[in-house]
Parts: sequence; C-alpha cells; structure tokens
Amino acid sequence: MKLKVAINGYGTIGKRVADAVALQDDMEVVGVTKTKPDFEARIAAKKFDLYLAKKENSELFQKAGIETCGTLEELLAKADIVVDCSPDKVGAENKKIYEKLSIKAIFQGGEKKEVAEVSFNALANYDQAKGKRFVRVVSCNTTALTRLIYLLKMNFKIGRVRATILRRISDPKEDNKGLMNAIMPDPIALPSHHAKDVKTVLPDVDIVTTAFKLPTTIMHVHSLSIEMKEKVKKEDVIAILEKEPRIMLVSAEDGFTSTAKIVEFARELRMRYDIFENVVWLESIAIDGNDLFVTQAVHQEAIVVPENIDAIRAIFGVEKRLSIEKTNRSLRIGEKNF
Amino acid sequence: MKLKVAINGYGTIGKRVADAVALQDDMEVVGVTKTKPDFEARIAAKKFDLYLAKKENSELFQKAGIETCGTLEELLAKADIVVDCSPDKVGAENKKIYEKLSIKAIFQGGEKKEVAEVSFNALANYDQAKGKRFVRVVSCNTTALTRLIYLLKMNFKIGRVRATILRRISDPKEDNKGLMNAIMPDPIALPSHHAKDVKTVLPDVDIVTTAFKLPTTIMHVHSLSIEMKEKVKKEDVIAILEKEPRIMLVSAEDGFTSTAKIVEFARELRMRYDIFENVVWLESIAIDGNDLFVTQAVHQEAIVVPENIDAIRAIFGVEKRLSIEKTNRSLRIGEKNF
Repeated sequence: MKLKVAINGYGTIGKRVADAVALQDDMEVVGVTKTKPDFEARIAAKKFDLYLAKKENSELFQKAGIETCGTLEELLAKADIVVDCSPDKVGAENKKIYEKLSIKAIFQGGEKKEVAEVSFNALANYDQAKGKRFVRVVSCNTTALTRLIYLLKMNFKIGRVRATILRRISDPKEDNKGLMNAIMPDPIALPSHHAKDVKTVLPDVDIVTTAFKLPTTIMHVHSLSIEMKEKVKKEDVIAILEKEPRIMLVSAEDGFTSTAKIVEFARELRMRYDIFENVVWLESIAIDGNDLFVTQAVHQEAIVVPENIDAIRAIFGVEKRLSIEKTNRSLRIGEKNF
Repeated sequence: MKLKVAINGYGTIGKRVADAVALQDDMEVVGVTKTKPDFEARIAAKKFDLYLAKKENSELFQKAGIETCGTLEELLAKADIVVDCSPDKVGAENKKIYEKLSIKAIFQGGEKKEVAEVSFNALANYDQAKGKRFVRVVSCNTTALTRLIYLLKMNFKIGRVRATILRRISDPKEDNKGLMNAIMPDPIALPSHHAKDVKTVLPDVDIVTTAFKLPTTIMHVHSLSIEMKEKVKKEDVIAILEKEPRIMLVSAEDGFTSTAKIVEFARELRMRYDIFENVVWLESIAIDGNDLFVTQAVHQEAIVVPENIDAIRAIFGVEKRLSIEKTNRSLRIGEKNF
C-alpha cells in the first residue's frame, strides 16, 4: 500500500516535491493543485491529476481548456497526507481546512513555527516528527545551516556559530522582482531570522546570523565561522562531511569557482538543475585560531525537497535511516558524478 | 609656498586625487598623466596640465588633437611629490623612475606593501609616514576596516575581528568585466588578503576575513563581528563613531535600505557621488553575547582620496590633526546634510 500524497500548490517547491514523491516506491501523488491556469498548470495537468486550489477559479481553467479533477477538498478526501506548498503565510490559512478534514499536513519554512507541532530537518530531528499531525520543514537557508551545524555538533564540541548569509534576491522565474545593482542588508538589525529558525530544530546551538540580499538569482552562499571547543584538524572536518550524502564537497581546482559553475555542473546532471545537497567548498574549510571556517552554497529552490519526502515518512513512523536512504537513492543524492 | 603635486595616472583614483589636491590651500596640481587619448584625457587636459604617461604615445595624442605638456619625467622635474595612481603593479615599475629622479612618491593599495616604507591610514598611523620618501595608501576595503577597527581599538579592549567582505565585482565604468549572475568566493581559501593588509597598518589586531565577489558595481559592504574583552553598550560604540567625521552613520529609518539608496543620497551632494566616509548602518550596531556587530558600506572609488591628501602632508611633516581637519573641510567630510 502506497502512501497517498496530495500537493497543495504547484509552484517552486510544489512541483519539485510532486516529482520527488512520484519517484518513491512507497508513495504516490494523488493530485496537485494550482490557483491559476498558466503554463505550469498545463504541465501539471499532463503529469498529475490537477485540482483547483480555489474553486472560484473553475471557469478560468475551463476557458483555458485545462481539465481539472475537482476541488482541493475533493483531493484531500483521497489523500493520507497533504504537503502544503502554497506561498508564505497561505499555509497557515489552509491549516483550517486540513484541521476540519482531519488530514495530516506538512508546511514549508515560509510559515511561522507555530503552524506545526515540530520544525523539521531530516538529519537533525527526524524522530521528533514521528506520529505528528502537523510538521513544518524549515526554509532553504535554515535547512543548509542545520545540516552542517548538526554534523559538526555531533562530532565535535562546538561553541558560537557566526554566519553571514548572502541571499539571492529572487528565484530565476520571479520577473516581478527585478535585479538591483545593490547590496541590501536584510534585516539591517540583528538577529536575522535564520539564527532563530535554526534554533527551532537545534535549540541549544549558540548561533548569530547576519543576512544580505544580493543581485543574483541562482543560489545563496553562507560564510560561516564556528568556534571549536576542542582541537580539531581540518582533515577531521572534511572526513565527517565527506561521509554525509546530503553534503556535496566541491573544489575550486575542479572549476567550481562560483555559484554559476555549480549550477553549470548541476545542469549536466539533473532536471531543472536541482541541487538537493549543501555544496561546500573544500578549500574554504580552514582552522584559524579556534575558529573553523566553512563556505557553502545553497540551491534555494531544491534543498528542502528531500526533507519534505522524509517528513512524510517520519509522520507515518518509518525508521529514520530507512527513509533517508530511500530518499537519497531516488533523488540520486550523494552520487559521485565525476 | 604650495606643495607641487604630480598625479601619475588619471583613472578612477587619479582623477579624484587631482580634484582633491586642487581643493587644498597648501597644494597645487602641477600636472597629471594619461596613457591613452580617450574622453578622460580630454577632460583632464581642460582641467590640468596633461603629460604623457608613455612618451611613445605622443603621436596618438597629437592625432586626437589633445595637447600635452611633455613627458612624465618632465612633469616630475617640476613636482615636490608624485601620487602614483597607475593600475595595480604598474606603480612598482614606476618606482624605478621615482628613485632615479629622487622624488617622493605615494602608491596605492594595489601595490605590494614592499613598494613603500610604510602602509598608511590617516587615523591609524599618520605619524609613521612623517618624513618618509615612499608611502603606500592601503586599498578601499582595508581603509574602511582600518578606520573602524582603529576607533574601536582606541576606545575599548577588543579581541578577534571576523569580517565577511562583500565586494562589488567591478567599478561602474569597467565595461570589459561584465556582471555575472553569481556569487564568487574570492579567495575561496582563507585568509583573504584584507586581513593581512589591515595588519600592515595595525599589526597587533587579531583579524580574519573572508571575501566574496558579487554582481554589483557601486559599493562594497562589510559584515563585521568584533569580540569585546570588556562590557560595552551599543550606545558607547555609537557615541565613538558619531564623533569621527570619516564615519557616516545612516539609518534604515531615513531610507538607507541598501547601497543603492546610499549612492542616491550621495548623488544629491557630491561630484561623481563620491563618498569618502565609511557608511555605517546605525541599526546594524548590536551587542550579542561578547560580540559587537557592525555593517558598513564602502565607496571603493572614493574612500582612499582623503587618505592620499593626508599622506602628502604627513610626508612633509605637517601635524596629523591639522592635516585631517584641512582635508575634511575641503572635501566636506563629516558635514551634516539633512
């Protein structure tokens, strides 16, 4: 018996989660929803059963000649769980529907932590989501920070984490935002929400983050320093990171000189050049005094996808290692590609 | 008797230093040099006596109808000092000429520290340049870091400084470089040269820097954390920075939400929107644990200009306070503008 998964919202995250669910041998997509009948809705309708996120838009879909299978409520009636991939804050609104219909739900990091019983990262706190009804997968930046800090914390005595987060100003498709010739501190006042958000998963980490919006669309970059409370060699750190499939170590020597080169590499390998891993520069790993320095790149559109898949399994009580291995294999996470 | 100043190289820095020298009541520009007869050479020839940086290009200038007054050597014969504003590494070549002609010289931060007897920042080590023959004004990023760290160091007990340097990929006029949609760690391996360069002026500061090139042209941004070895309130820090004319405190509340807004402000006030000050965001000043956090923006084309003026006076033994005050007044540094 496969788990029946509904995807509410077929945007940047939703379409990727839908494809990933379809790749699992223990899950199936019972349907996806769209609000507007645009080209993404046409593609969705070819791949999945398409439902109306807003039933009042039914006529718009009819006029556009896109067939739909019913309303959101009708979709939810067929599903064991819904992955809410609607825009920020809309998920909290949708929660009322999920509660009324008594369906389990996964929310994204754009929602406040109060939307769910637990904020989730597969490596760091998989077991806390077991048997829960509402789980929130933390955002892209928080996912990347949490994975890395969790691995360091499990293997070394660490102190304060200081991170500067260089954020892409918009996703590639967001043509309503535009690129500025500017650097924008966002927020300008400490702390950026990222530190607080990491603590929703790793409450006892001492972390401070500052964040900036930059005129690039393809990836975020994190510049981290982590105070080490014990003597550590950079080789020890590399050995830990090498073993974890959700970390991809790359080297400037191999041509990975910028986020543009990382994306160029991913375009050779994966649909939509999706990068599910933290991309850590090997040369950036350095010990200076008591500080460990690391620089990583984060594909904002894709990194939370495996976490959503694992969150589904956690809710239904599947064992952590089994879930993560299945997810990694199906999404080709951790494959050596050259 | 005014000091006779020659400017060798009338590019990004040279044209600004020439204008600044012309504004001083104790200096005069005896001439500037250009390599090629472009529009900048035409402007230079209208404002100053123009000399040939390379005498072999004499015919090119003749053909372009731009009158020149002679060779670099002829210019240097008339000057008390030369400010070398030629491209990176060319200054070191030019030094041979300056040595042969026994003329004092100021070099820019693109040269190695070995080019000069002292690396210079007006606030931090003015007196060390007194009576020297060869002085190097450190680069834009290093100037901004040095000013800020010097002020903190003079007023508080400080420990390790950690800085992430967000670098503009090119200056506005550098159309040969182009903007990438990318973030580029540069260098990818610790340390970036900025930390080492700060130590040429402040040798006993514990500083680590990481640096990234970004697709923006107008300003750099520094995200700094400074470990404090004593209890300090952010109000104390603000009070220190407010008193220093070469620091401009701005507030997001007043509309300074990004580097774009800072430049828009400067366009209302100054030729070429030159910003000679460190632009520090008031809201970014925060104490978290023992760390002081500060974010500042740096106008890479202009920030070293007052330092060059002060370096000239230091070489000729003028008193520090007198020089800095003259420079500030002439360039309207520290004026309250609204």
